Amino acid sequence: METRNGDSPATAESWRFKGNPDLNRASDITIRGVLNVLQQNLHKNGPRPVIPMGHGDPSPFPSFRAAAAAEDAVCAAVRSAKLNGYSSTVGIPSARRAVAEYLSRDLRYKLSPEDVFMTSGCKQALEAIITVLAAHPNANILLPRPGFPAYEARARFCHLEFRHFDLLPENDWEVDLAAVEAIADENTVAMVIINEGNPCGNVFKYQHLKKIAETARKLGILVISDEVYRDLSFGNNPFVPMGVFGSIVPVVTLGSLSKSWIVPGWRLGWLVTNDPNGILKSHGIVASIEGFLNITSDPVTFLQGALPQILENTPNDFFDKIKSTLKECSNILYDRCKEIPCITCPSKPEGSMFGMVKLDLSLLDGIKDDIHFCTELAKEESVIVLPGIAVGLKNWLRVTFAVEPSSLDDGFKRIKAFCERRMRKE
Amino acid sequence: METRNGDSPATAESWRFKGNPDLNRASDITIRGVLNVLQQNLHKNGPRPVIPMGHGDPSPFPSFRAAAAAEDAVCAAVRSAKLNGYSSTVGIPSARRAVAEYLSRDLRYKLSPEDVFMTSGCKQALEAIITVLAAHPNANILLPRPGFPAYEARARFCHLEFRHFDLLPENDWEVDLAAVEAIADENTVAMVIINEGNPCGNVFKYQHLKKIAETARKLGILVISDEVYRDLSFGNNPFVPMGVFGSIVPVVTLGSLSKSWIVPGWRLGWLVTNDPNGILKSHGIVASIEGFLNITSDPVTFLQGALPQILENTPNDFFDKIKSTLKECSNILYDRCKEIPCITCPSKPEGSMFGMVKLDLSLLDGIKDDIHFCTELAKEESVIVLPGIAVGLKNWLRVTFAVEPSSLDDGFKRIKAFCERRMRKE
Repeated sequence: METRNGDSPATAESWRFKGNPDLNRASDITIRGVLNVLQQNLHKNGPRPVIPMGHGDPSPFPSFRAAAAAEDAVCAAVRSAKLNGYSSTVGIPSARRAVAEYLSRDLRYKLSPEDVFMTSGCKQALEAIITVLAAHPNANILLPRPGFPAYEARARFCHLEFRHFDLLPENDWEVDLAAVEAIADENTVAMVIINEGNPCGNVFKYQHLKKIAETARKLGILVISDEVYRDLSFGNNPFVPMGVFGSIVPVVTLGSLSKSWIVPGWRLGWLVTNDPNGILKSHGIVASIEGFLNITSDPVTFLQGALPQILENTPNDFFDKIKSTLKECSNILYDRCKEIPCITCPSKPEGSMFGMVKLDLSLLDGIKDDIHFCTELAKEESVIVLPGIAVGLKNWLRVTFAVEPSSLDDGFKRIKAFCERRMRKE
Repeated sequence: METRNGDSPATAESWRFKGNPDLNRASDITIRGVLNVLQQNLHKNGPRPVIPMGHGDPSPFPSFRAAAAAEDAVCAAVRSAKLNGYSSTVGIPSARRAVAEYLSRDLRYKLSPEDVFMTSGCKQALEAIITVLAAHPNANILLPRPGFPAYEARARFCHLEFRHFDLLPENDWEVDLAAVEAIADENTVAMVIINEGNPCGNVFKYQHLKKIAETARKLGILVISDEVYRDLSFGNNPFVPMGVFGSIVPVVTLGSLSKSWIVPGWRLGWLVTNDPNGILKSHGIVASIEGFLNITSDPVTFLQGALPQILENTPNDFFDKIKSTLKECSNILYDRCKEIPCITCPSKPEGSMFGMVKLDLSLLDGIKDDIHFCTELAKEESVIVLPGIAVGLKNWLRVTFAVEPSSLDDGFKRIKAFCERRMRKE
């Protein structure tokens, strides 16, 4: 090479910038990263449509179309031309008030607008609280396994140590509270729960949530309750927000329009402090949340402006129809799994959009693990399912059942055909 | 106190979480932080309307109303119900292609859609590139003074050292390139320019930009060109994108709809690699940008979907009218300053929405600095102007002239009345 810089013969300089390995590593463990790899294994222009049972976005399917009332509210906000300007960094007052009132309906105390911080989807809410808690070099946070890997990705990026407690499949995916106590130490600052459950489709009972609150109080740690799938429960357990226990332990609730309103691309979420005793404020958490929001981008102003109407005007019919479709889909998942010998669903989903099913690799020939299973399935059947390892459980699968019911049924037929072809001969 | 934790007598526990001082410090130096303090000095329910000459958001003023074509495109995208789902983390292909084509019109090479990363406003683009460059513990970045403090805030938060070079008021706010060479060292990775100028309202000439490119090449550093105010120039110098010099030095261009389309609340921006020699890719910068976007929230999908129509259908008339109003406003600023003895505008703004004016405190009685001037002005005249210290120049003022012309004129009358009352008696 004639040039000083072997990388780029087009220039004679030695360029001084380079990439950030922290960023590259952090994104290794996102669901989208794994799904991108699976996508690459699909046959382009294959004869059958791809069935996406890998991620939580049913918005393209006719049965999951967004509510007209929500679209109306957004267009009216755009047409008003009064909501084109910057939002305040914590959110516009009318949106904060609307979320406070909406969430207070389920509580014995009243949230104030100042308890609500508007975010760019639930993802920015998650970024905010993890970044805030990463303040201290030895701090650690407790995360559920299986879970949602955006927590691990953000914590890794922020150099916040994370430790896993198990969710128990034999017990409707309840938290293993003994494990929580065993792994916590004096540097533990918070634990995360995801209710309704991603990836398990479970809905925590009131008494279990109360025990979580009591355990966290005993440990002196914050509870972060990811409730992005709230109000989608269709089984026996009604959804109970963790904020109900805000006087036992301070709770930071994360939520958004994305899932309950089937508009994940609208990026309108919230972080809410459920803390009637003011502990988060006195411990500097609220000021740090405000600091984070001050140096990051805000959710779209006209969407915030439309939020009071969206919350007020979306008819119950809309949610009833969505939940009834989800129930139909959960039944399909549960019943079809029973027909496939190498797959077991230990607990029928009663909420959210996902179920966890276990692979029995001993029954299959030449499949070495869940990633291999999903890769071959994508190749041969044009069905995308998330390998369990992406959410912390090797040799399980996370199946999205929030798919048009006829497609979901087709998807399971293809999975069955694939498994039958791969069954080990005795 | 009976409790172990004096802060929160409502509980008996010692809570283990605490705030993140990095976040609190980072937001100390944002413009919004300073403006919030000034807001608190306004008389609530004062007899006169507040005149906001402190920040770059003219969207509430009739003369700066957004284009109907842009509103139409957004409502059509919402009504299509095809754009409610997640975006890919780098942006949807149609939006990336539209930006690539739009920006390529001014270049001698063609940008590809893969050069474009869609972001939540220009702010997320800034966050992305600063975070990427903060990879290495000793790295430093060169920032303009006066400048835009979001760069300092984000760099401080990422523990990226920053050093300032001056913009020269006596030379139409050109970059002091000798200073750039003097402060750069082997750990310098990039320099930032803001063109059209925030806070100075200058528009860099072609030859000056070329010299910047050559200096950066000599130093082996990246040029980050913040062009969020592009295409608003109304004086003698046409706007020239830095990307024109992408074959001299790799350029990362930051932009958005916010300013040129007067819709800052839409949060639709982009980060573009102007790098025909592929240096950023070979040095890992592109992979790190993708990594950053993988762990942060995305811009709204239906706004990305509307972008091709917005870029295509907004009539030239719209921009002509905005520029003609800005020119009228810049004239008001320049002419009114001449009538106020303690204020000097060294260089008439020819672009963006701001001008820098110098305070002569020796002519004023009992005003100790620019912050004091702005605080008293807010109190007595309900006019908000940004103290120069917030953008790096003590005892200057950053004046936003993108205000309804009649209000701007009123604002300067109030500033004049204020200064006349405070003139030092000889």
